[in-house]
Amino acid sequence: LTSRLPNVGTTIFSVMSALAVEHGAVNLGQGFPDFDCDARIVDAVTKAMRDGHNQYPPMAGVAPLREAISHKIAAMHARHYDPNTEITVTAGATQALLTTILATVHPGDEVVVIEPTYDSYVPSIELAGGKPVFVALEAPDYAIDFDKLAAAITPRTRLLMINTPHNPTGRVWHADDMRRLEAIVRGTNVLILSDEVYEHMVYDGAPHESVARYPELAQRSFVVSSFGKTFHVTGWKVGYVAAPAALMAEFRKVHQFNVFTVNTAMQAGIADYLRDPAPYLELPAFYQQKRDTFRAGLANTRFKLLPCEGTYFQCVDYTAISDMPEAEFSQWLTREIGVAAIPVSAFYHAPHESGVVRFCFAKRDSTLATALERLARL
Amino acid sequence: LTSRLPNVGTTIFSVMSALAVEHGAVNLGQGFPDFDCDARIVDAVTKAMRDGHNQYPPMAGVAPLREAISHKIAAMHARHYDPNTEITVTAGATQALLTTILATVHPGDEVVVIEPTYDSYVPSIELAGGKPVFVALEAPDYAIDFDKLAAAITPRTRLLMINTPHNPTGRVWHADDMRRLEAIVRGTNVLILSDEVYEHMVYDGAPHESVARYPELAQRSFVVSSFGKTFHVTGWKVGYVAAPAALMAEFRKVHQFNVFTVNTAMQAGIADYLRDPAPYLELPAFYQQKRDTFRAGLANTRFKLLPCEGTYFQCVDYTAISDMPEAEFSQWLTREIGVAAIPVSAFYHAPHESGVVRFCFAKRDSTLATALERLARL
Ligand SMILES: CSCCC(=O)C(=O)O
Ligand SMILES: CSCCC(=O)C(=O)O
Repeated sequence: LTSRLPNVGTTIFSVMSALAVEHGAVNLGQGFPDFDCDARIVDAVTKAMRDGHNQYPPMAGVAPLREAISHKIAAMHARHYDPNTEITVTAGATQALLTTILATVHPGDEVVVIEPTYDSYVPSIELAGGKPVFVALEAPDYAIDFDKLAAAITPRTRLLMINTPHNPTGRVWHADDMRRLEAIVRGTNVLILSDEVYEHMVYDGAPHESVARYPELAQRSFVVSSFGKTFHVTGWKVGYVAAPAALMAEFRKVHQFNVFTVNTAMQAGIADYLRDPAPYLELPAFYQQKRDTFRAGLANTRFKLLPCEGTYFQCVDYTAISDMPEAEFSQWLTREIGVAAIPVSAFYHAPHESGVVRFCFAKRDSTLATALERLARL
Repeated sequence: LTSRLPNVGTTIFSVMSALAVEHGAVNLGQGFPDFDCDARIVDAVTKAMRDGHNQYPPMAGVAPLREAISHKIAAMHARHYDPNTEITVTAGATQALLTTILATVHPGDEVVVIEPTYDSYVPSIELAGGKPVFVALEAPDYAIDFDKLAAAITPRTRLLMINTPHNPTGRVWHADDMRRLEAIVRGTNVLILSDEVYEHMVYDGAPHESVARYPELAQRSFVVSSFGKTFHVTGWKVGYVAAPAALMAEFRKVHQFNVFTVNTAMQAGIADYLRDPAPYLELPAFYQQKRDTFRAGLANTRFKLLPCEGTYFQCVDYTAISDMPEAEFSQWLTREIGVAAIPVSAFYHAPHESGVVRFCFAKRDSTLATALERLARL
């Protein structure tokens, strides 16, 4: 059997989580909370199961959830997506990404990818027969080079993938970035796949600049998000895509033959829970406190802090501590210091070292304190 | 946007369910039970959620579920699959099928498909860039023509897809079929994708002949099944794949970038519920009673019964009633008689009429009685 993905191993997140368990390290690697979700969302799903919501939902998702998503987007970004034709519930954001790529990218098409980039993007493009075209951002500020981005677009570009707030760098796109993006794609047939799973983790009062806010962008975009991040249930695997009807029709053709649909009771429970906007409206404050605590602690170590405007990730420069390559340093840190991190090099397609690793601060304050204590010993 | 799947519309199951709702018809179309699952499985999932199983599980699935699946297969088919390297939990069987195809089929490879065939198979092959090669079975007995099957295999054949018990025909592969299959693939590099989602619905005391029982087949096979069918929870979307480690390694490369993993609490709850084998061991008797009741009722109508050895589907020949094409007849039956069915022509890639529709008998006895009463009027 010849591999379809010869360059792919086990995802770095699984590798580092396994290493953390093996060495009893504090796991600041893979992005997930070590605290539980709101009991009310569990109760809502339980009620749905007990009420008999256990058979196939509609292929695109249960109507109350599609409606709740539509309302949420309208309230946040003043754009109306028709719940019947423009919103589909997915088995998490990863499935939304692969399905969008399979639905839009033809063999030989180019897909522009901004590095560092989430590790599923490139294999997904390869499975579709597409050709990734890379635009690399560099530490410490990872500023988007819009000239490079414009130059990466050719007549063969089918799709441009963006991600804001950005994993792993914590960078957030601002209004002027969005306007430059508009200018770049204007007059082209380029579609946009906008990964916005950290949409509710933008700090310091800044707004989340969804492509949904920009009509010129929205009409050519698939917007992807996930309840796993927003409601502290990364294991639930419920996300969604919003896109104009013509794009969504193509998405659904693939979706129905990928997963067909998503757990009925989870959908019904989330729809119920979404009636109260407080949980997601309060999320920025909740995580900003953790970011600030974590950064304050790191200021007392030999790590150099990089900016963090959004997401639950904090990147640090460790070059004052070690000259090991990032992957080796992350493993050493897990094994010897007892704190797991993710090497940012894992987010580039080619060898790329800048002495930066990523920590996840979606952890109890006590977990962060233990990690900081260990990191301060360095 | 040029479609990747220009020939695909909305899946026939969604279309007919929507029509059934619209016309208040008894829905014997889409395959799902109209009764609820065992309260104990709901309780097991609830407990898992309340115990905090709400974050990412391991990519391949939670260990207790992989172990329970391994035990079940060993008990039924005397083959050991290593839970660590040979079993992966999927977001339903459909996702297992697409992922297997994406992981094995290279552009230009041929995939042998036996028609009538489940409607996701061909689009999945097309998304991988593969070429479906069809072997058609014909009503009323849908006997497998092994000479045709052998002739369909060429040096470019990567994969052969089988499905037993078979949807929509209710046909079941027997030991002699399996031995002929062994003979056909012996000495080739052909892989087998065996869709066994109706494994626990084989009637009249016959065994389910899984490819797992046949070492020569098992070593080249992906075995797919689903808890949705077995535990009356089609909306839960939890299935699995078993395959030798080398094949599973390729499967997981794609799986991790398709859905990454599957709902943690659902997995934990199903693992717990699987400790008692009674629910699946009693399933054949449970559905055989429904099959027998439904067939006895249909014997009093002008429909001609086709055989039903397994699955929860019963095919009937309606040519004594009407000469409409199958799709038209199914719609007419839904609208005018108030019973939804699925045209078997939907399971062939090219126009194919044999005057046969499929009914699902996974319904309460009272539902079946209402449907039979209406069908008897014809
Ligand atoms: C699929 S596990 C990875 C979780 C995550 O999004 C991350 O750690 O970046
Ligand atoms: C994905 S809905 C279809 C359910 C089913 O397996 C069938 O009706 O054949």
